[in-house]
Amino acid sequence: MRGDAFTRADSDVIRRMGRISSATACAKLHGMGISRTAVQGPTALDVGNRVVGSALTLQFMPQREDVASGLGQEYVERHTALWAVLETVQPGDVLVIQAYGSRFTGCLGDMLVRYFKRRGGAGIVVDGRIRDVQRVRELGVPIWCTGTTPHYASQTDLFPWAYDVPIAAGGVLCLPGDVVVADDDGAVIVPSSKALDLVVDAEDHENWEEFSRMRIEQGARLSDYYPLSPNSRAEYEAWRAVNRSA
Amino acid sequence: MRGDAFTRADSDVIRRMGRISSATACAKLHGMGISRTAVQGPTALDVGNRVVGSALTLQFMPQREDVASGLGQEYVERHTALWAVLETVQPGDVLVIQAYGSRFTGCLGDMLVRYFKRRGGAGIVVDGRIRDVQRVRELGVPIWCTGTTPHYASQTDLFPWAYDVPIAAGGVLCLPGDVVVADDDGAVIVPSSKALDLVVDAEDHENWEEFSRMRIEQGARLSDYYPLSPNSRAEYEAWRAVNRSA
Amino acid sequence: MRGDAFTRADSDVIRRMGRISSATACAKLHGMGISRTAVQGPTALDVGNRVVGSALTLQFMPQREDVASGLGQEYVERHTALWAVLETVQPGDVLVIQAYGSRFTGCLGDMLVRYFKRRGGAGIVVDGRIRDVQRVRELGVPIWCTGTTPHYASQTDLFPWAYDVPIAAGGVLCLPGDVVVADDDGAVIVPSSKALDLVVDAEDHENWEEFSRMRIEQGARLSDYYPLSPNSRAEYEAWRAVNRSA
Amino acid sequence: MRGDAFTRADSDVIRRMGRISSATACAKLHGMGISRTAVQGPTALDVGNRVVGSALTLQFMPQREDVASGLGQEYVERHTALWAVLETVQPGDVLVIQAYGSRFTGCLGDMLVRYFKRRGGAGIVVDGRIRDVQRVRELGVPIWCTGTTPHYASQTDLFPWAYDVPIAAGGVLCLPGDVVVADDDGAVIVPSSKALDLVVDAEDHENWEEFSRMRIEQGARLSDYYPLSPNSRAEYEAWRAVNRSA
Amino acid sequence: MRGDAFTRADSDVIRRMGRISSATACAKLHGMGISRTAVQGPTALDVGNRVVGSALTLQFMPQREDVASGLGQEYVERHTALWAVLETVQPGDVLVIQAYGSRFTGCLGDMLVRYFKRRGGAGIVVDGRIRDVQRVRELGVPIWCTGTTPHYASQTDLFPWAYDVPIAAGGVLCLPGDVVVADDDGAVIVPSSKALDLVVDAEDHENWEEFSRMRIEQGARLSDYYPLSPNSRAEYEAWRAVNRSA
Amino acid sequence: MRGDAFTRADSDVIRRMGRISSATACAKLHGMGISRTAVQGPTALDVGNRVVGSALTLQFMPQREDVASGLGQEYVERHTALWAVLETVQPGDVLVIQAYGSRFTGCLGDMLVRYFKRRGGAGIVVDGRIRDVQRVRELGVPIWCTGTTPHYASQTDLFPWAYDVPIAAGGVLCLPGDVVVADDDGAVIVPSSKALDLVVDAEDHENWEEFSRMRIEQGARLSDYYPLSPNSRAEYEAWRAVNRSA
Repeated sequence: MRGDAFTRADSDVIRRMGRISSATACAKLHGMGISRTAVQGPTALDVGNRVVGSALTLQFMPQREDVASGLGQEYVERHTALWAVLETVQPGDVLVIQAYGSRFTGCLGDMLVRYFKRRGGAGIVVDGRIRDVQRVRELGVPIWCTGTTPHYASQTDLFPWAYDVPIAAGGVLCLPGDVVVADDDGAVIVPSSKALDLVVDAEDHENWEEFSRMRIEQGARLSDYYPLSPNSRAEYEAWRAVNRSA
Repeated sequence: MRGDAFTRADSDVIRRMGRISSATACAKLHGMGISRTAVQGPTALDVGNRVVGSALTLQFMPQREDVASGLGQEYVERHTALWAVLETVQPGDVLVIQAYGSRFTGCLGDMLVRYFKRRGGAGIVVDGRIRDVQRVRELGVPIWCTGTTPHYASQTDLFPWAYDVPIAAGGVLCLPGDVVVADDDGAVIVPSSKALDLVVDAEDHENWEEFSRMRIEQGARLSDYYPLSPNSRAEYEAWRAVNRSA
Repeated sequence: MRGDAFTRADSDVIRRMGRISSATACAKLHGMGISRTAVQGPTALDVGNRVVGSALTLQFMPQREDVASGLGQEYVERHTALWAVLETVQPGDVLVIQAYGSRFTGCLGDMLVRYFKRRGGAGIVVDGRIRDVQRVRELGVPIWCTGTTPHYASQTDLFPWAYDVPIAAGGVLCLPGDVVVADDDGAVIVPSSKALDLVVDAEDHENWEEFSRMRIEQGARLSDYYPLSPNSRAEYEAWRAVNRSA
Repeated sequence: MRGDAFTRADSDVIRRMGRISSATACAKLHGMGISRTAVQGPTALDVGNRVVGSALTLQFMPQREDVASGLGQEYVERHTALWAVLETVQPGDVLVIQAYGSRFTGCLGDMLVRYFKRRGGAGIVVDGRIRDVQRVRELGVPIWCTGTTPHYASQTDLFPWAYDVPIAAGGVLCLPGDVVVADDDGAVIVPSSKALDLVVDAEDHENWEEFSRMRIEQGARLSDYYPLSPNSRAEYEAWRAVNRSA
Repeated sequence: MRGDAFTRADSDVIRRMGRISSATACAKLHGMGISRTAVQGPTALDVGNRVVGSALTLQFMPQREDVASGLGQEYVERHTALWAVLETVQPGDVLVIQAYGSRFTGCLGDMLVRYFKRRGGAGIVVDGRIRDVQRVRELGVPIWCTGTTPHYASQTDLFPWAYDVPIAAGGVLCLPGDVVVADDDGAVIVPSSKALDLVVDAEDHENWEEFSRMRIEQGARLSDYYPLSPNSRAEYEAWRAVNRSA
Repeated sequence: MRGDAFTRADSDVIRRMGRISSATACAKLHGMGISRTAVQGPTALDVGNRVVGSALTLQFMPQREDVASGLGQEYVERHTALWAVLETVQPGDVLVIQAYGSRFTGCLGDMLVRYFKRRGGAGIVVDGRIRDVQRVRELGVPIWCTGTTPHYASQTDLFPWAYDVPIAAGGVLCLPGDVVVADDDGAVIVPSSKALDLVVDAEDHENWEEFSRMRIEQGARLSDYYPLSPNSRAEYEAWRAVNRSA
């Protein structure tokens, strides 16, 4: 099953979000009144990766043989939602998968991640497991998942059901076209309508944190520079004016 | 969001399924190749209840303030999927709710269950919690849930999203119009296309178990009568012929 | 270890809170900006109980033989925090216990609950287990706990450490003198400074729900009366004016 | 697979243990240096039951189709360990089952419990679930289990493997012929070699607790009578001498 | 306690299985009707390891002081099942340990793994934890475990009980002499009677996947080459004929 | 809130403990009658780290807006317990944090760990998560935690409450001034009063293990040298006498 057409996140916003951490994105969204944005469960498969991209969604459902395995007719095409979604990947897409944190289902393996990479996919966040992980690691696609398993995608408790639909991944609602920011802290879903405001606010945040970091390394007192007080804010603005012009 | 129109389960099948236990339904489906039918998590709120009916589905999603709470425009009508689904209840319906086993969300309370009952609703299976449980118990609607909580439906981690859609409840796929069989053992989802075959097979099962139960009470050896051997099957058929005619 | 002296919750507020459900209290606190008030874990030991009272607190700590069992000197008096707190019980107190949801420690048994009852204790909320539950049930003290166990209070992983101190019970901060409201939905901690405001707001809520309940039983449409619309609010006010005068 | 022959627990010891609670048994064993005796997980299916008896053991294993379902030859007879163990039940036996706390396997149902009862079985402690629970409840056999399910014994993740063997039930080692004491607090396994010593010690404990209970009801201070001090012990001995002679 | 004598897995089969991934082994067993083969819980202690070998089994049991610690006589020799099993290690053996996923017991440490390595042990799969992990890592023995802990083998909740017996490890039945295949995806237990058939089937699978991988890298469409269609199968066979002869 | 003044662990003891593993410390404490010393939950953020130091404690509490966020007055200064404790760090301190294993709260991030490092902090053990983990890793402070999250310290379910107080971290009681020993096996809390005795005993243990390791590498039988028998103890003493003099 394929959901409605959707608009991918703005590429300029994604580019600017490139230097914003998931932690800053999450904190800023909290300040904007959006509280559930950090995907619970999936962790970085390999340390040091980072991705920002437009969300492409895939939803698994509990296995049911009359629906999934050809015993019945009606939903048989849904068996291939996993194959189908891969044909729609565009460069920069981040695939976000609802798999209920299943310990049994290996949502993706070597061949599928390989194909995803060839189509330009930028990263994968899956609230479930992956397989063929040794080969997958060699492909170098940044992946956030809940673990590994030898099981393939429809071998046990789940099967691929729908794509381009709103999903629940790790306790967070993700709509197609939302912005995904993922790094070693985890993955954060940024509602597309909030992305631009977030970028503006977060760029300032990343900037003054750079200043605060410097001051602390120079021996300043924590509470004077983190977070900025009115005084240190002024000091930062001055410093920033000089450094920006540099 | 409302899903596609669906056909309710056949009322004659539901009537005949009235004397079949969830355990027998589950075992027979297993024999028919359908293995994931027992909803994991929800238990009977009160002991001794039982319901068979056509599934009416409701799906919760993770809370997201730009979508659920009026900050945004686009999905605001979905906030009332819970209210909306109650307006569609027909006599005999069993409401099945996907709530991810949340320990925080009280999917239904006194007023909503009261309305459900007034419209003829037969029972509720919710992969989540309920509130106002003292008043709810007095209403006498059979309910299977994962517990109780003082929180209301959109107070914490989830909010009502869609109805008349396929859902995942307790690890089982439930389509609108499937047959729900629930008793003290738990709730089982019977695919509507399998319901008639199941009834025929299960009626026979319930019948010979009655015979076996009698023989065991009379002192017979377990393995001679449970399950039936060819010999005891013949004996049962003879007994049944007499008793049926009676 | 005993914490600082504290003031018990106002008895008039407690009296007025007597007809307010934990669900209403929790919802109103949410509206007042206090979001974590429902104690996670403990459930009603017996169905149909209800208590409102001033919180008396007790904290367990992980077992450590040099501290708890007399190997060391310094903290040995803390071994009796459980005995000590019982000597301070005043009529109407609700004992709230931090026990980390331990599956092993039976925080209270027959003899201690018996003594608690004799001193006028009104109820117990324990984020842990109890023992001697058959005798305890006969005492009739309303209890919310996470289960039962044959282990006594300091037999396994925890021991009683301090009382009259702020505690974390089931993910909720409880200060001595807060108001505890517990019923079949669970237990809610009402900050003492919010209790009076809550009562005023909640009394109105309980009143209009009574009206709405009546209208729904009479066949009204759910969304017209739950929650009240401006129209139905006016209708309720009129009805209330008549009924109140009655 | 059947384990070695074993000796059932002494019937006189079992009789004397009849008035000792699981909590007292567990505490006394702790005092005797045996620390893991309380079965974690299983709770009383119905409140108010109690059983003491000699342990009869049954072990489940993870399902494996080449072993369990007739694909292979070698272990096929083990498929019926559940049926086989029931043929060995003697009056007063308590069946203790290792099922790894599985949420999926219904280890016993109506027919098997019925047969168990007919053979004089006294109670069942299963670290797993049961099915047909409505009928099972009517049989009145005291049962401690981790829940209910519609699945039958070999339908999903486990199958019956061996009996009369040492088992691990709820984190406790149980040998055939150990004494099982179970009540509303849970089930305790008493090593058969410790049972007589325990009875002697526990009878005294139950006796002085009766005295302490009386004193507390009469208004005494908790710490004077629970546990007994040297003074109150003397007082108890005197009281006991009079009461015993009565 | 030592179980019955057993036959180690065929060395030629083990050699041929050397290039088959745990994922392929698991998928092929599923196709052969064996569904529970992937050990749940243990993960690779270090990334990039791989082992295939014949299973040597060890079973822990819940600690019981009258049995394990010399208080009693009867089972005292079982205290050293861990030491005993290490004396039976033969080159290429994979030690598989049932420890119930305990978070507390460090089943093996530096000295024992060191000895295991000296005797030629090929790898270890333990449904529990290990200790001395820094030194253990330096030994380079491939290990799959559920974590680390400072506790030694019989310090807390378990102790070594039996070896050369059927065990349940991570929800999978493992018989002595089964084939263990473990890599970064996890560990899979291959029933010895199925191993040869599996090898033949899996070698073909690994071969055509190599071909499919190549085609996908060359820009082919996923669904044309994964899995193979009749057309691409033919294409593969031709390619294979050429490559094999090369 | 700040607890009472405390004495840091003796620096000489800490120095001598430098070569003792957490496993040996834990085993020796067990032998000294202290059984709960291994912190459950936190694991090494990076492999190969090790720290020994004096415990500095910090306690989180469940979020409550009237207390934590300025709605109320009384406890507002506690909001900064996290900032305050960092001002008290002395060289060699190990910060131990009670955060209930929360999956949501990022107790520390880049800026705070940076400040901790500048003040000479030696390591961090947190029964909760951290954020900004990529930058934190670069700082090189050894950290044991339960995971990572983008959330900041008071964003979700907890907030910093008190420091220099006894805490419960991962099921272990930690008093300010206790000795913390942490390595790849995990973190162990050594009661300060036991530290010297432990050092003496553990040094001997580390020494004979070095000898045993050598003998095993030379081909000796495990049970002859691990643990030492009277014979091999004598052999070790002789070897040690020679090597010590070297």
